[in-house]
Amino acid sequence: MNEVTSRLAEYVLAARLEDIPPDVRKEARRALVNYVGCALGGSRHEAVDITLAALGPLGGPATSAVLGRRERTDPMLASLLNGISSHVHDFDDTTPRNYIHPTSPVASALFAYAGSRRVRGADLELAFILGFEAVSRIGNATYPAHYDAGWHSTGSIGVFGAAIAIGKLLGLSHRQMVWAIGLAATQSCGLREMFGSMAKSFHPGRSAQSGYMAALLAQQNFTAGVQAIEGPRGFAAVQSSAYDLARITHRLGSDFELRVNAYKPFPCGIVVHPTIDACIQLRERHRIDPQHIAAVRLRVAPLVKDLCDKRDIGTGLEGKFSAYHAAAIGLVRGKAGLGEFTDETVNEPLVRQVRSRVESTGDPAVPEDGVRVEVELADGRRFGIELDHSLGNLERPLSDTQLEAKFLDQSSVLTEARARELISACWRIEELDDVSGLVALAVPDA
Amino acid sequence: MNEVTSRLAEYVLAARLEDIPPDVRKEARRALVNYVGCALGGSRHEAVDITLAALGPLGGPATSAVLGRRERTDPMLASLLNGISSHVHDFDDTTPRNYIHPTSPVASALFAYAGSRRVRGADLELAFILGFEAVSRIGNATYPAHYDAGWHSTGSIGVFGAAIAIGKLLGLSHRQMVWAIGLAATQSCGLREMFGSMAKSFHPGRSAQSGYMAALLAQQNFTAGVQAIEGPRGFAAVQSSAYDLARITHRLGSDFELRVNAYKPFPCGIVVHPTIDACIQLRERHRIDPQHIAAVRLRVAPLVKDLCDKRDIGTGLEGKFSAYHAAAIGLVRGKAGLGEFTDETVNEPLVRQVRSRVESTGDPAVPEDGVRVEVELADGRRFGIELDHSLGNLERPLSDTQLEAKFLDQSSVLTEARARELISACWRIEELDDVSGLVALAVPDA
Repeated sequence: MNEVTSRLAEYVLAARLEDIPPDVRKEARRALVNYVGCALGGSRHEAVDITLAALGPLGGPATSAVLGRRERTDPMLASLLNGISSHVHDFDDTTPRNYIHPTSPVASALFAYAGSRRVRGADLELAFILGFEAVSRIGNATYPAHYDAGWHSTGSIGVFGAAIAIGKLLGLSHRQMVWAIGLAATQSCGLREMFGSMAKSFHPGRSAQSGYMAALLAQQNFTAGVQAIEGPRGFAAVQSSAYDLARITHRLGSDFELRVNAYKPFPCGIVVHPTIDACIQLRERHRIDPQHIAAVRLRVAPLVKDLCDKRDIGTGLEGKFSAYHAAAIGLVRGKAGLGEFTDETVNEPLVRQVRSRVESTGDPAVPEDGVRVEVELADGRRFGIELDHSLGNLERPLSDTQLEAKFLDQSSVLTEARARELISACWRIEELDDVSGLVALAVPDA
Repeated sequence: MNEVTSRLAEYVLAARLEDIPPDVRKEARRALVNYVGCALGGSRHEAVDITLAALGPLGGPATSAVLGRRERTDPMLASLLNGISSHVHDFDDTTPRNYIHPTSPVASALFAYAGSRRVRGADLELAFILGFEAVSRIGNATYPAHYDAGWHSTGSIGVFGAAIAIGKLLGLSHRQMVWAIGLAATQSCGLREMFGSMAKSFHPGRSAQSGYMAALLAQQNFTAGVQAIEGPRGFAAVQSSAYDLARITHRLGSDFELRVNAYKPFPCGIVVHPTIDACIQLRERHRIDPQHIAAVRLRVAPLVKDLCDKRDIGTGLEGKFSAYHAAAIGLVRGKAGLGEFTDETVNEPLVRQVRSRVESTGDPAVPEDGVRVEVELADGRRFGIELDHSLGNLERPLSDTQLEAKFLDQSSVLTEARARELISACWRIEELDDVSGLVALAVPDA
């Protein structure tokens, strides 16, 4: 595999949209719908405000819109901002084979690019598919060693996808694309030590920005090492104690990792998703009045006890990692959007009351993607449910309608009419002559 | 050592220039003289031209001068450009304990900062000393494992120094400085696989820029992990298989790594420095006319045979790693500045003739920093020299006068009068009310 960088570049440059199977193109649009919704949902987060305040004054000519914001800036800074907003609620997509969130670093650069230069929707969709594919395959080739070592691969691998996607749009030559991949590799970074702080969302943003820069430099013939992935001191050797680089090029152009992309239905720790899902189903099926709940008994996989066993919580952030809160909002609200993980909701009397009545037991017989729930009402009636696959996982993917509902739940910065127009533009992206029109729809009115 | 990040931040924030011993402050100024000369010398390199062409149009308000250039740009892009120019000829300083070039990432950010905000020379000197110290100590704590793994530590560790230096000037609080170090750690990158390409010089540049960004974000309270260096998934654990973090804080404020900083006399592979040095001495001592040289016999450390054994060369870059070329220019030119490593010089008839008459033998008895040279003239006379320590190493540091000569040799973008004025401003930096005046001297006239 001493030519993997070169072969990857070759494939990316040769690929045409008509060579991509229709189901993959459809999945790309689903990923973009999910992505734009997440970017809108995170666009007012403090981390975005701070980044704009700190770096906006140093930004270049303001050609590019930022998703969900009225401020404009240069495309590299816009890449950073889009990356932060789309990941800051941990609500973006995940490829379960390697736990990377591949869309954020790639699409964040692409939509920023679309602000600075005219780009056809079909070209952007293709560049996105190729960037996503590169991230996922490099991720597969180095998983789990790279992630286990402490790298936040969404950033440390995402940078390759951003460079490749922007490089594709720029029309790089083969050697330029090889250099772009090299300049991406040598900017690969992002430590899991940052989890729990704003710096986590900085990772996809910075990787989008760094990949963008890599492509711009390569376009002007800034040279880099040509075996950046496979070389003796390249990305794989340095940043992954074990790897199988054949996975990067095996059936390239035939197999597509977009087919195994997953969309979170709930903006919280993935291990409590089955609990939320089950409790929503119980509530609907039995028309449970949360006022009358006497007890909730969860049987969960032991991993859930390890990660999300805190009942006595006070903040929205804590709520994202509490199986007790998960059960409570499922039963009280019948949904779990951004509004269910605010400090207010966590402290709402009825939510607190139900949460206090939840008990949780670890049970190795329960699959990690499942749960057993029993609800007992004040009148003694009991309702139970057994779930083995949670909504949003590959066995039970979100429908297009559910993706749209997730989008609308996050798009309060826009009017509903505008949000629906934007969703429609994402579905029709292959037909768009210029993606800047789509990006403009994501900018709130004054 | 679970508070090393916090303690480092604490020290940096408390440090005052009057607490720094005079010899260390003097050495800081020597490092800055050496740095500014190198930045001038590299300022017209293609890598700088390309970066300006690629990224200049996306740069922000042009507050900052770039050393050696007439273009102005924003301070973060100026940091990148200064970092590239000052390292691109591999002529900047080195701390022999860890082979880092610490000044480039730190000073590149500082002189860019001085373009955008008023900063007193004494404050810049202090910030430089602290940034240099942080880089060197983190380097010592993780050497050799971090470097051996394939990291170009000038970039991957330089980023800490840039963040700390800029953070010191911005007046960060303790928690902000901890975040700045965290945001630096999570941008630590730079692969040795890039050696031999322009991307090598990109490393100190990008680390200067990333460190600058880290400090700006932290100033606005962008949060990061607070154990970025020592945490279980922090910099040391992830990027170094072995480390001794006590070296970061041991005798902090008492011992200074600037005392063991070394300045290269020649812009080429360090292992051929003894050969150049010895040949210059032979030429001067015996008034050798290179036309009459019949044979040159080198006895070198085996390492030199491993790394620099190519006689048949055609480019300046190859000349930097050829013991044969090293001997030839020492004997023909009596010096080895940037002009001795051009394609023209490598192909000059007399240089070629002498180079063809050089023989080289590996000898384990010769120290790595030494050489044995015998020159035989056409008339049969023979002159020999044994060198055990080469000029520029800690045992034989460059004098202030030699540093100035090195500066002048690299400052062809300025008039000699202007270059001398700039050197003088560097020596007097502690007295300067505003460093922007010094930076302005480094900008060529139209």
